[in-house]
Amino acid sequence: MEDRKSLLTVIAGFQGLDREDLEKLRAIIVQGEHKKGDLIFSDGQEGRGFFAVLRGQVKVYKMSPEGKEVILHVCGPGDQFGQAAMFGNQRYPAWAEALCASTVALFPGESFLELIGRYPHIALAMFQDLSSKLRQLTSQVEGLALKEVPGRLASYLVYLAEEQKSPGSIVLDTSKYQLASILGTTPETLSRILSDMTERNLITVDRREITLLDHDYIIQLAKQGRYGA
Amino acid sequence: MEDRKSLLTVIAGFQGLDREDLEKLRAIIVQGEHKKGDLIFSDGQEGRGFFAVLRGQVKVYKMSPEGKEVILHVCGPGDQFGQAAMFGNQRYPAWAEALCASTVALFPGESFLELIGRYPHIALAMFQDLSSKLRQLTSQVEGLALKEVPGRLASYLVYLAEEQKSPGSIVLDTSKYQLASILGTTPETLSRILSDMTERNLITVDRREITLLDHDYIIQLAKQGRYGA
Repeated sequence: MEDRKSLLTVIAGFQGLDREDLEKLRAIIVQGEHKKGDLIFSDGQEGRGFFAVLRGQVKVYKMSPEGKEVILHVCGPGDQFGQAAMFGNQRYPAWAEALCASTVALFPGESFLELIGRYPHIALAMFQDLSSKLRQLTSQVEGLALKEVPGRLASYLVYLAEEQKSPGSIVLDTSKYQLASILGTTPETLSRILSDMTERNLITVDRREITLLDHDYIIQLAKQGRYGA
Repeated sequence: MEDRKSLLTVIAGFQGLDREDLEKLRAIIVQGEHKKGDLIFSDGQEGRGFFAVLRGQVKVYKMSPEGKEVILHVCGPGDQFGQAAMFGNQRYPAWAEALCASTVALFPGESFLELIGRYPHIALAMFQDLSSKLRQLTSQVEGLALKEVPGRLASYLVYLAEEQKSPGSIVLDTSKYQLASILGTTPETLSRILSDMTERNLITVDRREITLLDHDYIIQLAKQGRYGA
């Protein structure tokens, strides 16, 4: 119980809650343990509320009938997901699956709304999380509609550098297989592009750590969407 | 003044506010008049808050350096936009431009948050608007990554039918030129696909009204992403 309460404090906006407030929040959540590969919700399933990862990692993705995937978000401890169907009359527009053994909290929509009147700073944290998701999806739409794969990768690196407040190097929060899916490409194409960017002295890659050697050029590549003429 | 106050009630969640509450809300907004083609914010501009359309129509879009556009949202009276940079330390991730003479209200982020503690049902309306945007962007990412253009169009028709609560026919809230941009295609390709769907007796098109003759097949096309083998 104590453990569950302290886990809640990993969620943005909940750190400021005192013991009593956490107790109230804990009273509304439904906690679930998932093993790797477990589905947390299905595309089209009726909304019950939103979720937050307490431990582990969850991917949110769309799938074509042939099984081709595009990953929308990879969520780690403290990240929220499923807000697109927070309220009962909506349906989750994507799949959510545990990438490893994970502990996940469901915040039932109606109970959560009652809390917001009392704790407006929870709403603030929620708005910030939603704003960040809008920015990320906006960038993903832009990439898919307007950019070639090197431009999409550059945009994603710039995005991660900003999120991680680390302009010189970033740590991928996903596997390269998942990164390919986020960028709407294949792992083979992504590998080829990473090698090519390394040869161009733009980056170095060490497992999941990518050092941005030429930050300005990467920003330009992200903006242009492709290598210049 | 009276006029401005009553305009505010077009915004989802604000209808329930009484005269006094509207007065408080009116005190924080910054109202702007824009003519067709005016920019309301630029991609990369620092966030000042979010906006709502009171009168007219606003498009939110991304643009490639060559000027190719992809429209993310077309917003009419009552619709909110710019929430991706509600708070001062964020930047708008897209362009917003008036499509015709429009009246737009800016809700400065900080002032708005103060109001939410007093009026939690405004937060609810805001969450619903954000949830809807997440669903729409999710569908757009899915379409661009996994579907051919007929499948994207079918998804958009199903989305509009649900939003308009009208399964048999929908009214496009955009021009066909804008619709092509939302679907990541050209107006010529879109025209060809609309003609083709008409020949297949799936739809009829009368200016901006599209009648869905075979709703089940259109849903299947939306799910499959392409015409079946």
